[in-house]
Amino acid sequence: MNFCTQCGAKVTLQIPEGDDRPRFVCNGCATIHYENPKMVVGTIPVMENKILLCKRAIEPRRGKWTLPAGWLENGETVTTCARRETKEETCAQVEELRPYILVDLPFINQVYLFFRARLLHHDFQAGTESLEVKLFNPADIPWDELAFSAVHETLKFFCEDLKKAEFPFRIIDINPHEKGSIFCAEKRISK
Amino acid sequence: MNFCTQCGAKVTLQIPEGDDRPRFVCNGCATIHYENPKMVVGTIPVMENKILLCKRAIEPRRGKWTLPAGWLENGETVTTCARRETKEETCAQVEELRPYILVDLPFINQVYLFFRARLLHHDFQAGTESLEVKLFNPADIPWDELAFSAVHETLKFFCEDLKKAEFPFRIIDINPHEKGSIFCAEKRISK
Repeated sequence: MNFCTQCGAKVTLQIPEGDDRPRFVCNGCATIHYENPKMVVGTIPVMENKILLCKRAIEPRRGKWTLPAGWLENGETVTTCARRETKEETCAQVEELRPYILVDLPFINQVYLFFRARLLHHDFQAGTESLEVKLFNPADIPWDELAFSAVHETLKFFCEDLKKAEFPFRIIDINPHEKGSIFCAEKRISK
Repeated sequence: MNFCTQCGAKVTLQIPEGDDRPRFVCNGCATIHYENPKMVVGTIPVMENKILLCKRAIEPRRGKWTLPAGWLENGETVTTCARRETKEETCAQVEELRPYILVDLPFINQVYLFFRARLLHHDFQAGTESLEVKLFNPADIPWDELAFSAVHETLKFFCEDLKKAEFPFRIIDINPHEKGSIFCAEKRISK
């Protein structure tokens, strides 16, 4: 950030009075510009214990497999976003959304939220951002060809949960520099 | 938003090519500025079925009661944020964090996330942003003196769950113009 969104003057990184971390502050109008993590919301579309994945048609990670997900937009709820992204990327409608996992990625200021959801029909097909969409048996998931670590971890938990048919809501974090932790709606488990 | 953060030129609200909603686009360098919802993260600190609330010392809603919570910062995880805000506002340390509820407020572009947590000691006291902190029996919660609708709804669910000692993770939305809905990790319930 170089310029103030309000008045166009230059900004300087400084710790405002009463604050404890650096913010971009306007040299002209003194507006403090806060920057916060963004949410990515999506679904795990499931039909007969198979999972619908999308091969990305866009960068980053073009050609890699992922779950349908995207940025939460202003004015929409997380469930609206989950349905919209699933529709955009797989042309599929999903039902019976259940909160499944929240993945913290503090090193890139992102928070992923995935719902598991029921895929009712076989009328899915690649949306404009996908090269291909395909149902995978857990045993056939292309683990080395997944686009994002958040998707990798989500699918890892989900495939384990499928065996037990138990899906406790979890909050996990991925941090390349530290050992992560798992906070479960039922109990806390150390990794 | 009036000016581009990158080059300082004026921005115009327009729908970029391939997009479906208006964004602020720079008239100079063509940077597209995306705006997304922000997360507010906090705890429900509990000791012997009593809930710790804070009376706000700052605007908005100075003098009203709330749960300890605040903006998720870049570089921190949701659990770090929940602990930090609880410490800042009540001087208390909480343990055994469990994801409890996510509250969507699409009309103000906010997503609240609350953990229930165990308050281990009576050494809480008002932090700089609180006038007073106090343990409340569910029967004594000052419902008409709560600061925010997200806190009101969270406490309403929590007091009901306390009676049953069951705490399913829920995602709810609050929208003054529409009937809300509840998405539960266990089952979906219509309001």
